[in-house]
Amino acid sequence: MPQLASAVAPTPAIDPLRERLDARLGELLPAPCDPHDRVCLAMREATLAPGKRIRPILMVLAGRELGCDAPALVDLGCAVEMVHSASLILDDMPCMDGAALRRGRPTVHRRFGEDVAVLAAVALLSQAFRVVASLPDVAPPLRNRLVASLADVVGTRGLVRGQYQDLHDGRDARGAQDISHTNELKTGVLFATALDMAGLVAGASVRARQALRRFALELGQAFQLHDDLQDRGDSTRTGKDTGRDAGKSTLLALLGPDEVRRRLRAHVAAAESQLERVYGPDCALGAYLDRLFAAA
Amino acid sequence: MPQLASAVAPTPAIDPLRERLDARLGELLPAPCDPHDRVCLAMREATLAPGKRIRPILMVLAGRELGCDAPALVDLGCAVEMVHSASLILDDMPCMDGAALRRGRPTVHRRFGEDVAVLAAVALLSQAFRVVASLPDVAPPLRNRLVASLADVVGTRGLVRGQYQDLHDGRDARGAQDISHTNELKTGVLFATALDMAGLVAGASVRARQALRRFALELGQAFQLHDDLQDRGDSTRTGKDTGRDAGKSTLLALLGPDEVRRRLRAHVAAAESQLERVYGPDCALGAYLDRLFAAA
Repeated sequence: MPQLASAVAPTPAIDPLRERLDARLGELLPAPCDPHDRVCLAMREATLAPGKRIRPILMVLAGRELGCDAPALVDLGCAVEMVHSASLILDDMPCMDGAALRRGRPTVHRRFGEDVAVLAAVALLSQAFRVVASLPDVAPPLRNRLVASLADVVGTRGLVRGQYQDLHDGRDARGAQDISHTNELKTGVLFATALDMAGLVAGASVRARQALRRFALELGQAFQLHDDLQDRGDSTRTGKDTGRDAGKSTLLALLGPDEVRRRLRAHVAAAESQLERVYGPDCALGAYLDRLFAAA
Repeated sequence: MPQLASAVAPTPAIDPLRERLDARLGELLPAPCDPHDRVCLAMREATLAPGKRIRPILMVLAGRELGCDAPALVDLGCAVEMVHSASLILDDMPCMDGAALRRGRPTVHRRFGEDVAVLAAVALLSQAFRVVASLPDVAPPLRNRLVASLADVVGTRGLVRGQYQDLHDGRDARGAQDISHTNELKTGVLFATALDMAGLVAGASVRARQALRRFALELGQAFQLHDDLQDRGDSTRTGKDTGRDAGKSTLLALLGPDEVRRRLRAHVAAAESQLERVYGPDCALGAYLDRLFAAA
């Protein structure tokens, strides 16, 4: 799953939130039983490595601007970040994308071994469900609903399906629509579920939650196009292997960089118009979005 | 994780229950999106392959004899079976035990590829959490508690830790106590959580749940010893590769078959005495236990 390049300008209003999220992630991740507990070490290294925490930041901002600043939003964001981290560990494995670098460091299976990588991913997923089931000050029926949502987005209609399609259909010639659908499953659905969950915790209306989901799906498409453009680039900027998409049927290969940039801008604009439906013309989420894609 | 040999005599009272569990498992597992949906096919084949369904049978029997015959017990048992199935898929992978056979058939990664094996295991775990969060007629706070229990038993204090210890400490010379501790993490903790969850759904007292947990831990130890004895045997009987423990520090290697058989009987007797504390001298769970270990 893609990440934006670290070329994004610093966002002063965001930094304290990211620090709060990192601190809470550190508390919610299990501590190693002993100094040789390599599974816990791998979980912590993979998840606490410097990152932008885009999903939890979006969730907390979405909730705040709906008038909700509950600590549960931070915990829910941490759970989504754990799922994201687990998916990156697995995507990088030799039987998947076979990546050597992630966030500028050797990938988890290269540092800790494939067995530890698989076990760390399983433990991260489990811990994410534990965190959601234990959310503070969230009514028990809503916690059950959030657990079910998280399970759905991981499973055979979500990330699992996206990864499978990317691996198995990615090498075939495909139309732009098929590629967009895989991109949606690989990236958009986790954004959409994350923002829908934030809306649920914040007590958003059905209409606001629908707009947040559409915002998230547009953002996911923009993200994936941005990632495709980055993949041609310089690994010292992205911190990842580049050229991993060689031979894959991406929109970039199909349509060329100019059309991809045009589509990227169109998805960002569509994302912004959905935000406006919920929050009006100016909102922190929109400002954050602008900064994320400033480099593109 | 071990399984008992299929030499166990048929148990007429158990067969309808096993069929009911299999039917419900088939309903709760996601159906393939299309005929090429290999992840769903792998999930279904791995989980619905002929098996004894020991964990869910124990759970339903434990609940029934506490006066509870709620459909939730069947669903909860199916969730535990999905977790068990996911753990078997991962344990068999080349980066773990590297097994070629399971239940008499090629292991999942050999039939479907390593990528599909990992994705199927992740999807099975997610579906298990979804089923628990959606249990019918169970109060929402209890469903949250059950999700948290299941997460704990999978994670870094449970199956993940057991598998890691088995892989990394298993080749070192260890004392009997260390080996028993790994066996507990690999097998006993899932039994214990399964029976504790059944007790919670059935409204059992704290004292009864404590006895059920102790029963389950003794059963787990007996199971692992039985598995060690089987590992020396004939793969046509166990349906698994044999000789996989060669080079591992097992209690069998340390103590020899006579002492292992003596200990196995002692664990079964201890398990039965815990059952008696909950159910009195005669119970269906005890009869089932006797049949399970009749061959030993």
